[in-house]
Amino acid sequence: MEASKNTMVVKVIGPPYASCSRRVLACLIEKEVEFEIIPIDILKGEQKSPEFLKLQPFGVVPVIQDGDYTLYESRAIMRYYSEKYKSQGTDLLGKTLEEKGLVEQWLETEGQNYHPPIYNLILHLLFHPKLGFPVDDKIVKESEEKLEKVLDIYEERLSKSKYLAGEFFSLADLSHLPFTHYLVHDIGRAYLIRNRKHVSAWWDDITSRESWKKVLQL
Amino acid sequence: MEASKNTMVVKVIGPPYASCSRRVLACLIEKEVEFEIIPIDILKGEQKSPEFLKLQPFGVVPVIQDGDYTLYESRAIMRYYSEKYKSQGTDLLGKTLEEKGLVEQWLETEGQNYHPPIYNLILHLLFHPKLGFPVDDKIVKESEEKLEKVLDIYEERLSKSKYLAGEFFSLADLSHLPFTHYLVHDIGRAYLIRNRKHVSAWWDDITSRESWKKVLQL
Repeated sequence: MEASKNTMVVKVIGPPYASCSRRVLACLIEKEVEFEIIPIDILKGEQKSPEFLKLQPFGVVPVIQDGDYTLYESRAIMRYYSEKYKSQGTDLLGKTLEEKGLVEQWLETEGQNYHPPIYNLILHLLFHPKLGFPVDDKIVKESEEKLEKVLDIYEERLSKSKYLAGEFFSLADLSHLPFTHYLVHDIGRAYLIRNRKHVSAWWDDITSRESWKKVLQL
Repeated sequence: MEASKNTMVVKVIGPPYASCSRRVLACLIEKEVEFEIIPIDILKGEQKSPEFLKLQPFGVVPVIQDGDYTLYESRAIMRYYSEKYKSQGTDLLGKTLEEKGLVEQWLETEGQNYHPPIYNLILHLLFHPKLGFPVDDKIVKESEEKLEKVLDIYEERLSKSKYLAGEFFSLADLSHLPFTHYLVHDIGRAYLIRNRKHVSAWWDDITSRESWKKVLQL
Protein backbone atom coordinates (compact mmCIF):
# COMPACT_ATOMS: atom_id res chain seq x y z
CA MET A 1 0.00 0.00 0.00
CA GLU A 2 1.19 3.51 -0.76
CA ALA A 3 1.38 6.43 1.60
CA SER A 4 -1.84 8.34 1.06
CA LYS A 5 -2.02 11.78 -0.47
CA ASN A 6 -5.78 11.31 -0.81
CA THR A 7 -8.49 10.85 1.75
CA MET A 8 -10.26 8.17 -0.30
CA VAL A 9 -8.87 4.64 -0.48
CA VAL A 10 -9.48 3.00 -3.85
CA LYS A 11 -10.79 -0.56 -3.63
CA VAL A 12 -9.30 -2.84 -6.30
CA ILE A 13 -11.53 -5.90 -6.59
CA GLY A 14 -9.62 -8.83 -8.07
CA PRO A 15 -6.65 -10.99 -7.13
CA PRO A 16 -3.37 -9.04 -7.19
CA TYR A 17 -1.67 -11.74 -9.30
CA ALA A 18 -4.15 -11.41 -12.19
CA SER A 19 -2.53 -9.71 -15.19
CA CYS A 20 -5.14 -6.97 -15.59
CA SER A 21 -5.12 -6.28 -11.85
CA ARG A 22 -1.35 -5.90 -12.03
CA ARG A 23 -1.70 -3.29 -14.78
CA VAL A 24 -3.99 -1.22 -12.55
CA LEU A 25 -1.92 -1.73 -9.38
CA ALA A 26 1.31 -0.64 -11.09
CA CYS A 27 -0.48 2.51 -12.24
CA LEU A 28 -1.90 3.30 -8.79
CA ILE A 29 1.55 2.87 -7.21
CA GLU A 30 3.15 5.14 -9.86
CA LYS A 31 0.43 7.71 -9.16
CA GLU A 32 0.86 7.37 -5.35
CA VAL A 33 -2.81 6.58 -4.92
CA GLU A 34 -3.71 4.63 -1.79
CA PHE A 35 -5.56 1.40 -2.46
CA GLU A 36 -6.97 -1.67 -0.79
CA ILE A 37 -7.12 -5.03 -2.57
CA ILE A 38 -10.33 -7.07 -2.32
CA PRO A 39 -8.95 -10.44 -3.48
CA ILE A 40 -11.86 -12.48 -4.86
CA ASP A 41 -11.09 -16.10 -5.76
CA ILE A 42 -11.17 -16.43 -9.56
CA LEU A 43 -10.25 -20.14 -9.42
CA LYS A 44 -13.53 -20.69 -7.52
CA GLY A 45 -15.31 -18.54 -10.15
CA GLU A 46 -16.26 -15.71 -7.81
CA GLN A 47 -15.98 -13.30 -10.74
CA LYS A 48 -19.12 -14.96 -12.14
CA SER A 49 -21.15 -14.49 -8.95
CA PRO A 50 -24.33 -12.35 -9.19
CA GLU A 51 -22.78 -9.89 -6.74
CA PHE A 52 -19.65 -9.41 -8.88
CA LEU A 53 -21.61 -9.31 -12.15
CA LYS A 54 -23.54 -6.31 -10.80
CA LEU A 55 -20.22 -4.44 -10.73
CA GLN A 56 -18.67 -6.01 -13.87
CA PRO A 57 -21.20 -7.64 -16.21
CA PHE A 58 -18.51 -9.38 -18.30
CA GLY A 59 -17.34 -11.33 -15.22
CA VAL A 60 -13.66 -10.42 -15.42
CA VAL A 61 -11.28 -8.68 -13.01
CA PRO A 62 -10.42 -6.04 -11.93
CA VAL A 63 -13.07 -3.51 -10.96
CA ILE A 64 -12.35 -0.46 -8.87
CA GLN A 65 -14.64 1.23 -6.39
CA ASP A 66 -13.76 4.75 -5.39
CA GLY A 67 -16.43 6.03 -3.03
CA ASP A 68 -19.60 5.42 -5.02
CA TYR A 69 -17.79 5.42 -8.38
CA THR A 70 -17.29 2.04 -10.05
CA LEU A 71 -15.07 1.48 -13.08
CA TYR A 72 -13.75 -1.51 -15.01
CA GLU A 73 -11.47 -2.26 -18.01
CA SER A 74 -7.88 -1.99 -16.83
CA ARG A 75 -6.73 0.52 -19.46
CA ALA A 76 -9.74 2.76 -18.76
CA ILE A 77 -8.99 2.67 -15.01
CA MET A 78 -5.35 3.60 -15.70
CA ARG A 79 -6.40 6.54 -17.87
CA TYR A 80 -8.84 7.77 -15.21
CA TYR A 81 -6.28 7.86 -12.39
CA SER A 82 -3.49 9.20 -14.61
CA GLU A 83 -5.70 12.14 -15.48
CA LYS A 84 -7.36 12.61 -12.08
CA TYR A 85 -3.98 12.85 -10.35
CA LYS A 86 -2.08 14.36 -13.28
CA SER A 87 0.44 16.23 -11.14
CA GLN A 88 0.82 13.57 -8.42
CA GLY A 89 3.39 10.77 -8.71
CA THR A 90 4.72 9.87 -12.15
CA ASP A 91 3.15 11.73 -15.09
CA LEU A 92 2.06 8.80 -17.29
CA LEU A 93 0.31 10.77 -20.05
CA GLY A 94 2.92 13.17 -21.43
CA LYS A 95 3.16 16.93 -21.03
CA THR A 96 1.31 18.08 -24.16
CA LEU A 97 -1.75 16.93 -26.09
CA GLU A 98 0.60 15.74 -28.83
CA GLU A 99 2.61 13.62 -26.39
CA LYS A 100 -0.64 12.29 -24.97
CA GLY A 101 -1.78 11.41 -28.49
CA LEU A 102 1.33 9.27 -28.92
CA VAL A 103 0.74 7.62 -25.53
CA GLU A 104 -2.76 6.75 -26.77
CA GLN A 105 -1.39 5.53 -30.11
CA TRP A 106 0.96 3.07 -28.39
CA LEU A 107 -1.55 2.11 -25.70
CA GLU A 108 -3.98 1.21 -28.50
CA THR A 109 -1.16 -0.62 -30.29
CA GLU A 110 -0.65 -2.65 -27.11
CA GLY A 111 -4.37 -3.39 -26.81
CA GLN A 112 -5.05 -4.13 -30.49
CA ASN A 113 -1.76 -5.52 -31.89
CA TYR A 114 0.39 -6.78 -29.01
CA HIS A 115 -2.21 -8.12 -26.62
CA PRO A 116 -4.12 -10.57 -28.88
CA PRO A 117 -1.12 -12.72 -29.87
CA ILE A 118 0.60 -12.58 -26.46
CA TYR A 119 -2.69 -13.43 -24.75
CA ASN A 120 -3.08 -16.51 -26.97
CA LEU A 121 0.49 -17.61 -26.26
CA ILE A 122 0.03 -17.29 -22.48
CA LEU A 123 -3.39 -18.95 -22.63
CA HIS A 124 -2.15 -21.98 -24.56
CA LEU A 125 1.33 -22.40 -23.10
CA LEU A 126 0.71 -21.44 -19.46
CA PHE A 127 -2.96 -21.69 -18.45
CA HIS A 128 -4.27 -24.51 -20.66
CA PRO A 129 -1.59 -26.99 -19.49
CA LYS A 130 -2.27 -26.01 -15.84
CA LEU A 131 -6.02 -26.48 -16.29
CA GLY A 132 -5.75 -29.65 -18.34
CA PHE A 133 -7.18 -28.02 -21.48
CA PRO A 134 -5.79 -28.87 -24.93
CA VAL A 135 -3.01 -26.75 -26.46
CA ASP A 136 -3.68 -25.63 -30.02
CA ASP A 137 -0.27 -25.75 -31.76
CA LYS A 138 -1.57 -23.87 -34.79
CA ILE A 139 -2.71 -20.94 -32.61
CA VAL A 140 0.63 -21.00 -30.76
CA LYS A 141 2.60 -20.88 -34.01
CA GLU A 142 0.46 -18.14 -35.60
CA SER A 143 0.48 -16.07 -32.41
CA GLU A 144 4.25 -16.27 -32.05
CA GLU A 145 4.68 -15.17 -35.68
CA LYS A 146 2.30 -12.24 -35.18
CA LEU A 147 4.05 -11.21 -31.98
CA GLU A 148 7.45 -11.36 -33.73
CA LYS A 149 6.21 -8.90 -36.36
CA VAL A 150 4.91 -6.52 -33.70
CA LEU A 151 8.19 -6.77 -31.77
CA ASP A 152 10.17 -5.99 -34.95
CA ILE A 153 8.23 -2.72 -35.16
CA TYR A 154 8.86 -2.06 -31.45
CA GLU A 155 12.59 -2.69 -32.03
CA GLU A 156 12.65 -0.06 -34.77
CA ARG A 157 10.67 2.39 -32.64
CA LEU A 158 12.80 1.84 -29.53
CA SER A 159 15.98 2.39 -31.54
CA LYS A 160 14.77 5.98 -31.94
CA SER A 161 13.16 6.77 -28.59
CA LYS A 162 13.80 5.43 -25.09
CA TYR A 163 10.14 4.57 -24.50
CA LEU A 164 7.27 3.80 -26.87
CA ALA A 165 5.63 7.23 -26.79
CA GLY A 166 8.88 9.23 -26.58
CA GLU A 167 11.56 9.99 -24.01
CA PHE A 168 9.21 9.45 -21.05
CA PHE A 169 7.80 6.35 -19.33
CA SER A 170 4.03 6.26 -19.87
CA LEU A 171 0.89 4.13 -19.68
CA ALA A 172 1.86 2.74 -23.08
CA ASP A 173 4.97 1.08 -21.62
CA LEU A 174 3.36 0.13 -18.31
CA SER A 175 0.50 -1.67 -20.03
CA HIS A 176 2.94 -4.23 -21.50
CA LEU A 177 4.28 -5.38 -18.12
CA PRO A 178 1.91 -8.14 -16.93
CA PHE A 179 1.68 -10.36 -20.02
CA THR A 180 5.29 -9.82 -21.09
CA HIS A 181 6.31 -10.94 -17.59
CA TYR A 182 4.70 -14.32 -18.30
CA LEU A 183 6.30 -14.43 -21.75
CA VAL A 184 9.78 -13.93 -20.31
CA HIS A 185 9.47 -15.98 -17.11
CA ASP A 186 6.87 -18.71 -17.58
CA ILE A 187 6.65 -20.04 -21.13
CA GLY A 188 10.24 -20.12 -22.34
CA ARG A 189 9.84 -17.28 -24.81
CA ALA A 190 12.32 -14.79 -23.29
CA TYR A 191 14.24 -14.92 -26.58
CA LEU A 192 11.47 -12.93 -28.28
CA ILE A 193 12.54 -10.02 -26.07
CA ARG A 194 16.25 -10.83 -25.69
CA ASN A 195 16.90 -11.27 -29.44
CA ARG A 196 16.00 -7.63 -29.94
CA LYS A 197 18.59 -5.22 -28.52
CA HIS A 198 16.40 -2.18 -27.98
CA VAL A 199 13.33 -4.11 -26.85
CA SER A 200 15.54 -5.98 -24.39
CA ALA A 201 16.98 -2.75 -22.93
CA TRP A 202 13.46 -1.27 -22.71
CA TRP A 203 12.23 -4.38 -20.90
CA ASP A 204 15.08 -4.18 -18.36
CA ASP A 205 14.31 -0.51 -17.83
CA ILE A 206 10.55 -0.78 -17.29
CA THR A 207 10.78 -3.90 -15.09
CA SER A 208 13.34 -2.22 -12.83
CA ARG A 209 10.80 0.36 -11.69
CA GLU A 210 9.92 0.19 -7.99
CA SER A 211 6.20 0.12 -8.84
CA TRP A 212 6.53 -3.12 -10.78
CA LYS A 213 8.72 -4.77 -8.13
CA LYS A 214 6.05 -3.93 -5.55
CA VAL A 215 3.28 -5.34 -7.74
CA LEU A 216 5.10 -8.66 -8.05
CA GLN A 217 5.33 -8.86 -4.26
CA LEU A 218 1.62 -8.29 -3.65
CA MET B 1 -15.75 18.53 -45.83
CA GLU B 2 -16.75 20.64 -42.86
CA ALA B 3 -16.71 24.40 -42.55
CA SER B 4 -13.40 25.24 -40.94
CA LYS B 5 -13.03 26.67 -37.47
CA ASN B 6 -9.32 25.88 -37.67
CA THR B 7 -6.60 27.17 -39.90
CA MET B 8 -5.02 23.73 -40.26
CA VAL B 9 -6.58 21.11 -42.51
CA VAL B 10 -6.13 17.58 -41.17
CA LYS B 11 -5.02 15.06 -43.77
CA VAL B 12 -6.68 11.66 -43.34
CA ILE B 13 -4.61 9.10 -45.25
CA GLY B 14 -6.72 6.07 -46.11
CA PRO B 15 -9.77 5.28 -48.23
CA PRO B 16 -12.95 6.84 -46.79
CA TYR B 17 -14.82 3.51 -47.05
CA ALA B 18 -12.40 1.66 -44.75
CA SER B 19 -13.97 0.95 -41.35
CA CYS B 20 -11.26 2.54 -39.26
CA SER B 21 -11.14 5.59 -41.54
CA ARG B 22 -14.91 5.95 -41.06
CA ARG B 23 -14.48 5.96 -37.28
CA VAL B 24 -12.01 8.86 -37.56
CA LEU B 25 -14.05 10.75 -40.18
CA ALA B 26 -17.25 10.57 -38.12
CA CYS B 27 -15.32 11.98 -35.17
CA LEU B 28 -13.79 14.83 -37.19
CA ILE B 29 -17.22 15.77 -38.56
CA GLU B 30 -18.76 15.72 -35.06
CA LYS B 31 -15.89 17.94 -33.87
CA GLU B 32 -16.26 20.30 -36.88
CA VAL B 33 -12.62 19.81 -37.81
CA GLU B 34 -11.77 20.49 -41.45
CA PHE B 35 -10.11 17.56 -43.19
CA GLU B 36 -8.82 16.39 -46.53
CA ILE B 37 -8.88 12.71 -47.51
CA ILE B 38 -5.79 11.22 -49.15
CA PRO B 39 -7.36 8.04 -50.57
CA ILE B 40 -4.62 5.47 -51.01
CA ASP B 41 -5.59 2.24 -52.80
CA ILE B 42 -5.61 -0.58 -50.26
CA LEU B 43 -6.72 -3.15 -52.85
CA LYS B 44 -3.45 -2.43 -54.68
CA GLY B 45 -1.62 -2.76 -51.34
CA GLU B 46 -0.46 0.87 -51.16
CA GLN B 47 -0.67 0.63 -47.34
CA LYS B 48 2.34 -1.71 -47.53
CA SER B 49 4.47 0.70 -49.60
CA PRO B 50 7.75 1.92 -48.03
CA GLU B 51 6.40 5.47 -48.11
CA PHE B 52 3.25 4.54 -46.16
CA LEU B 53 5.13 2.28 -43.73
CA LYS B 54 7.25 5.27 -42.73
CA LEU B 55 4.05 6.86 -41.42
CA GLN B 56 2.34 3.69 -40.16
CA PRO B 57 4.74 0.77 -39.59
CA PHE B 58 1.91 -1.78 -39.21
CA GLY B 59 0.71 -1.04 -42.76
CA VAL B 60 -2.92 -0.31 -41.94
CA VAL B 61 -5.15 2.73 -42.45
CA PRO B 62 -5.85 5.42 -41.41
CA VAL B 63 -3.05 7.78 -40.46
CA ILE B 64 -3.55 11.49 -39.90
CA GLN B 65 -1.13 14.28 -40.64
CA ASP B 66 -1.80 17.58 -38.94
CA GLY B 67 0.97 19.97 -39.85
CA ASP B 68 4.08 18.01 -38.87
CA TYR B 69 2.20 15.82 -36.38
CA THR B 70 1.49 12.24 -37.45
CA LEU B 71 -0.83 9.89 -35.55
CA TYR B 72 -2.35 6.45 -36.15
CA GLU B 73 -4.72 4.00 -34.42
CA SER B 74 -8.28 5.19 -35.02
CA ARG B 75 -9.34 5.29 -31.36
CA ALA B 76 -6.20 7.24 -30.42
CA ILE B 77 -6.88 9.76 -33.21
CA MET B 78 -10.47 10.18 -32.00
CA ARG B 79 -9.31 10.79 -28.43
CA TYR B 80 -6.76 13.36 -29.58
CA TYR B 81 -9.24 15.48 -31.53
CA SER B 82 -12.00 15.10 -28.95
CA GLU B 83 -9.67 16.54 -26.35
CA LYS B 84 -7.91 19.10 -28.55
CA TYR B 85 -11.23 20.63 -29.60
CA LYS B 86 -13.10 19.85 -26.37
CA SER B 87 -15.47 22.81 -26.62
CA GLN B 88 -15.94 22.73 -30.40
CA GLY B 89 -18.66 20.64 -32.03
CA THR B 90 -20.12 17.70 -30.10
CA ASP B 91 -18.51 16.97 -26.73
CA LEU B 92 -17.63 13.29 -27.14
CA LEU B 93 -15.84 12.75 -23.82
CA GLY B 94 -18.35 13.70 -21.12
CA LYS B 95 -18.38 16.73 -18.84
CA THR B 96 -16.54 15.35 -15.80
CA LEU B 97 -13.57 13.03 -15.25
CA GLU B 98 -16.03 10.42 -13.98
CA GLU B 99 -18.11 10.64 -17.17
CA LYS B 100 -14.91 10.45 -19.20
CA GLY B 101 -13.89 7.36 -17.22
CA LEU B 102 -17.12 5.67 -18.31
CA VAL B 103 -16.54 6.76 -21.94
CA GLU B 104 -13.13 5.08 -21.70
CA GLN B 105 -14.62 1.98 -20.04
CA TRP B 106 -17.09 1.49 -22.93
CA LEU B 107 -14.57 2.47 -25.60
CA GLU B 108 -12.24 -0.22 -24.21
CA THR B 109 -15.20 -2.62 -24.10
CA GLU B 110 -15.74 -1.91 -27.80
CA GLY B 111 -12.06 -2.45 -28.59
CA GLN B 112 -11.51 -5.54 -26.42
CA ASN B 113 -14.89 -7.33 -26.28
CA TYR B 114 -17.05 -6.17 -29.19
CA HIS B 115 -14.47 -5.66 -31.92
CA PRO B 116 -12.74 -9.09 -31.97
CA PRO B 117 -15.89 -11.17 -32.64
CA ILE B 118 -17.52 -8.65 -35.00
CA TYR B 119 -14.24 -8.29 -36.92
CA ASN B 120 -14.06 -12.08 -37.39
CA LEU B 121 -17.68 -12.19 -38.59
CA ILE B 122 -17.12 -9.42 -41.14
CA LEU B 123 -13.80 -10.91 -42.24
CA HIS B 124 -15.23 -14.37 -42.86
CA LEU B 125 -18.70 -13.49 -44.14
CA LEU B 126 -17.95 -10.35 -46.16
CA PHE B 127 -14.29 -10.04 -47.14
CA HIS B 128 -13.18 -13.67 -47.48
CA PRO B 129 -15.95 -14.52 -49.98
CA LYS B 130 -15.14 -11.36 -51.97
CA LEU B 131 -11.43 -12.21 -52.05
CA GLY B 132 -11.92 -15.93 -52.71
CA PHE B 133 -10.47 -16.94 -49.32
CA PRO B 134 -11.99 -19.84 -47.35
CA VAL B 135 -14.67 -19.19 -44.74
CA ASP B 136 -14.03 -20.84 -41.37
CA ASP B 137 -17.46 -21.93 -40.12
CA LYS B 138 -16.14 -22.67 -36.62
CA ILE B 139 -14.79 -19.12 -36.27
CA VAL B 140 -18.09 -17.74 -37.59
CA LYS B 141 -20.13 -19.76 -35.07
CA GLU B 142 -17.89 -18.95 -32.10
CA SER B 143 -17.72 -15.26 -33.03
CA GLU B 144 -21.49 -14.97 -33.35
CA GLU B 145 -21.93 -16.60 -29.93
CA LYS B 146 -19.39 -14.25 -28.36
CA LEU B 147 -21.01 -11.22 -29.97
CA GLU B 148 -24.45 -12.35 -28.72
CA LYS B 149 -23.14 -12.40 -25.15
CA VAL B 150 -21.65 -8.93 -25.49
CA LEU B 151 -24.88 -7.63 -27.00
CA ASP B 152 -26.89 -9.10 -24.10
CA ILE B 153 -24.79 -6.97 -21.76
CA TYR B 154 -25.30 -3.93 -24.02
CA GLU B 155 -29.07 -4.57 -23.94
CA GLU B 156 -29.06 -4.53 -20.14
CA ARG B 157 -26.89 -1.40 -20.07
CA LEU B 158 -28.98 0.45 -22.68
CA SER B 159 -32.17 -0.35 -20.76
CA LYS B 160 -30.78 1.93 -18.04
CA SER B 161 -29.05 4.70 -20.01
CA LYS B 162 -29.69 6.14 -23.47
CA TYR B 163 -26.06 5.72 -24.57
CA LEU B 164 -23.30 3.39 -23.43
CA ALA B 165 -21.47 5.86 -21.18
CA GLY B 166 -24.60 7.63 -19.91
CA GLU B 167 -27.19 10.09 -21.22
CA PHE B 168 -24.81 11.58 -23.79
CA PHE B 169 -23.52 10.40 -27.19
CA SER B 170 -19.79 9.76 -26.94
CA LEU B 171 -16.77 8.19 -28.60
CA ALA B 172 -17.88 4.91 -27.02
CA ASP B 173 -21.05 4.85 -29.16
CA LEU B 174 -19.41 6.32 -32.26
CA SER B 175 -16.68 3.68 -32.30
CA HIS B 176 -19.30 0.95 -32.90
CA LEU B 177 -20.63 2.48 -36.13
CA PRO B 178 -18.38 1.14 -38.93
CA PHE B 179 -18.33 -2.59 -38.19
CA THR B 180 -21.94 -2.73 -36.96
CA HIS B 181 -22.93 -1.09 -40.25
CA TYR B 182 -21.52 -4.15 -42.08
CA LEU B 183 -23.20 -6.49 -39.60
CA VAL B 184 -26.61 -4.95 -40.24
CA HIS B 185 -26.36 -4.29 -43.97
CA ASP B 186 -23.92 -6.73 -45.56
CA ILE B 187 -23.84 -10.13 -43.86
CA GLY B 188 -27.47 -10.82 -42.96
CA ARG B 189 -26.96 -10.46 -39.22
CA ALA B 190 -29.26 -7.47 -38.58
CA TYR B 191 -31.28 -9.71 -36.23
CA LEU B 192 -28.44 -9.57 -33.69
CA ILE B 193 -29.29 -5.88 -33.29
CA ARG B 194 -33.04 -6.01 -34.04
CA ASN B 195 -33.79 -8.85 -31.58
CA ARG B 196 -32.71 -6.57 -28.75
CA LYS B 197 -35.13 -3.72 -28.09
CA HIS B 198 -32.76 -1.23 -26.47
CA VAL B 199 -29.77 -2.04 -28.68
CA SER B 200 -32.03 -1.61 -31.71
CA ALA B 201 -33.27 1.82 -30.56
CA TRP B 202 -29.67 2.87 -29.78
CA TRP B 203 -28.57 1.75 -33.25
CA ASP B 204 -31.35 3.77 -34.90
CA ASP B 205 -30.37 6.77 -32.81
CA ILE B 206 -26.63 6.74 -33.48
CA THR B 207 -26.97 5.97 -37.20
CA SER B 208 -29.39 8.88 -37.67
CA ARG B 209 -26.69 11.41 -36.80
CA GLU B 210 -25.73 13.75 -39.63
CA SER B 211 -22.06 12.93 -39.14
CA TRP B 212 -22.59 9.24 -39.91
CA LYS B 213 -24.81 9.97 -42.93
CA LYS B 214 -22.06 12.19 -44.31
CA VAL B 215 -19.41 9.53 -43.73
CA LEU B 216 -21.40 6.98 -45.71
CA GLN B 217 -21.57 9.43 -48.63
CA LEU B 218 -17.82 10.07 -48.75
